[in-house]
Amino acid sequence: MLVKEILRRPPVTIRADATVEEAADLMAKENVGLLVIVRDNPKRPVGVISERDIIRAISRKIPLTTTVDRVGTMEKFIWIREDETVYRAAYLMRKHHIRHLVVLNEGGDLVGVLSVRDLIAEDKIIESLSADRRPSSKE
Amino acid sequence: MLVKEILRRPPVTIRADATVEEAADLMAKENVGLLVIVRDNPKRPVGVISERDIIRAISRKIPLTTTVDRVGTMEKFIWIREDETVYRAAYLMRKHHIRHLVVLNEGGDLVGVLSVRDLIAEDKIIESLSADRRPSSKE
Repeated sequence: MLVKEILRRPPVTIRADATVEEAADLMAKENVGLLVIVRDNPKRPVGVISERDIIRAISRKIPLTTTVDRVGTMEKFIWIREDETVYRAAYLMRKHHIRHLVVLNEGGDLVGVLSVRDLIAEDKIIESLSADRRPSSKE
Repeated sequence: MLVKEILRRPPVTIRADATVEEAADLMAKENVGLLVIVRDNPKRPVGVISERDIIRAISRKIPLTTTVDRVGTMEKFIWIREDETVYRAAYLMRKHHIRHLVVLNEGGDLVGVLSVRDLIAEDKIIESLSADRRPSSKE
C-alpha cells in the first residue's frame, strides 16, 4: 500500500508571516493537526507548524501574535514521497515521534499531509489488528 | 493484544479548576496530547482536554485563563477497559475521530490514556504493514 493511495485531502498551507493565532484558527476550521508553511510558492514547503508546536508556545509564554516561522519547525521537517509505502510512513512517524508527514511528489512538490490517524482509518490496517480478537471474541 | 499490554505510561491528570494555560503547560512538559480532568478523586475522570480543544479555544478567542472544564469534553468522553482489545481501541478512535482513549480498569478507576501513536509504536502493528513492502522492496 502506497502513501498516495491513502492520502485523504489536500494539504492545508499557511504563509510564514501568519500569526500563531491565525494558525490555530485555520487548524480548527480545517480540522487538521498540522499546517504546511510556505512563502511565495504554495507548492514548496519551507516548514510545518503542529498543534503541539502551539501548545509548546503557550507553555513558553510566547505571544499568539508571533509569526508561525518562529514557532514551527523550519527546513528540517520530516517528509515522504507519495510513492513510498505506508509501512515506511509508519516507520518514520515512529522514529521521529511525530504524527504527521509532509507528502511530496517526484518533482518535490507538496501533494498532501499524512497523519497517524489516516493510518488507523484504513480498513486493511485496522483489520490487521482483528486477528487478536478471534480467540476470545464475544462480539 | 489487549489495551493493557500496550499502555505505556500513567495518565496525566489535571483538576477541573485549572486554566487552559496550565493545561497547555502540563501537556508540553509531559509531552502528551490529552489530559484527564478530575475533581477530588484522581482515579475518577470527569472529562478530558486535548490539544485540539485548546486550538479550538484559541480559534474561538476564549481566554487562556478559562478553566479546563469549560473547554474540555466533560462527562461524555470516550473510554475503554484495559482488558479490551487493541482492535477495539482502534475501532473506537476511528469511529469517534479521536486520537486518545481514557483507559479504565474493571472497577472503573483510571489506569491510563491510549493514543493512536501508541498503536503505531507497536512492532506487531507496524509489521502488519510491512507485507506491502515485500514485492517491490529495495530496502
